Amino acid sequence: MSTEFFDVVMRQRAHRSFTDQPVSDDEISQLLHAATRAPSAENRQPWEFVVVRDAELRAAIGALTERAWEGGGRQFAERRLDPALLADVEAGARGGVSSAPVLVVVCAHLDRGLRQTVGSSIFPAVQNLLLAATALGLGSALTTITTVFEAELRNLLALPDRVQPVAVVPIGHPQTQLGPSRRAPFAARTHRDRYGSAW
Amino acid sequence: MSTEFFDVVMRQRAHRSFTDQPVSDDEISQLLHAATRAPSAENRQPWEFVVVRDAELRAAIGALTERAWEGGGRQFAERRLDPALLADVEAGARGGVSSAPVLVVVCAHLDRGLRQTVGSSIFPAVQNLLLAATALGLGSALTTITTVFEAELRNLLALPDRVQPVAVVPIGHPQTQLGPSRRAPFAARTHRDRYGSAW
Repeated sequence: MSTEFFDVVMRQRAHRSFTDQPVSDDEISQLLHAATRAPSAENRQPWEFVVVRDAELRAAIGALTERAWEGGGRQFAERRLDPALLADVEAGARGGVSSAPVLVVVCAHLDRGLRQTVGSSIFPAVQNLLLAATALGLGSALTTITTVFEAELRNLLALPDRVQPVAVVPIGHPQTQLGPSRRAPFAARTHRDRYGSAW
Repeated sequence: MSTEFFDVVMRQRAHRSFTDQPVSDDEISQLLHAATRAPSAENRQPWEFVVVRDAELRAAIGALTERAWEGGGRQFAERRLDPALLADVEAGARGGVSSAPVLVVVCAHLDRGLRQTVGSSIFPAVQNLLLAATALGLGSALTTITTVFEAELRNLLALPDRVQPVAVVPIGHPQTQLGPSRRAPFAARTHRDRYGSAW
């Protein structure tokens, strides 16, 4: 499998079901090393990574995810997603994501970053993590739904008050090899000098 | 220059000064194509890219950036940044960023994405854009300071009310080749199963 940069970018997909095949600490280390090369506001690197392998903890996070889905996520998604994506997201929320052998809970430490720059400081690192997983042939996904239960996550993972959970990234070997991602052509979203002027 | 995935990740730096050497439409297209491969909440792809080449517009954006810096950015940064980073950011804010031949203003269209998922839907695409620039040997940086003047940016770029500017990314050939980025080791920010348990 090519690890050429543009091949990795084109191959990235959201994986929400995984095999039992384990993922090594060495692989996780490569992903996290890559994640920390991302930029952050003022180079403050506010990220904290909780790598969850413990089966009970993963099940508890999975239960929270399912509760968030049943408690509003599905109702909301039903109005917005096409049937294929809805089915995939639903299967992910109902145990698929937590079936991954590793869940990386990506957090922001608010003593090192401002609340208003959490997004610009954490999601570039998450994207590096996802791309690095793709490069290694691992499946992953960017999920945030579980963070609606911030207090419960904080309790499960012993997160201090100033550490905010931002994303839950499952890492594992993909159950299914997925084809190319579906995207509108970039030119349809690109403007020359001013909005509305065609690229 | 290697375009192997992990080499590109390790080579990424924030560039805030550029030469006059032009950047082609073909190069910009490659960057934006890569950007749109990133994940977004519900795959709604809320990004809009305004590619600014016009010299007057770039100067106007540069003036806004400098105003944001003089009007509070510097005072804030002086208390937080080390002297080397402060000098670099200051030079960037005072004309360095807008000296790039291309400024990509990355926006979120709120008709396609929710306000609360702008961060998770836009910054992964921005990171792909930055990495792709690195892969092509171009310099870039993730800057957000200019977006404090949202109304003024909206006016300059004819952005509709529902299109929110999120980042200004300069693209050009780097004035200086930079060494490796400075980061805390990932293991210092990584926890096993629960916060505080060493990786």
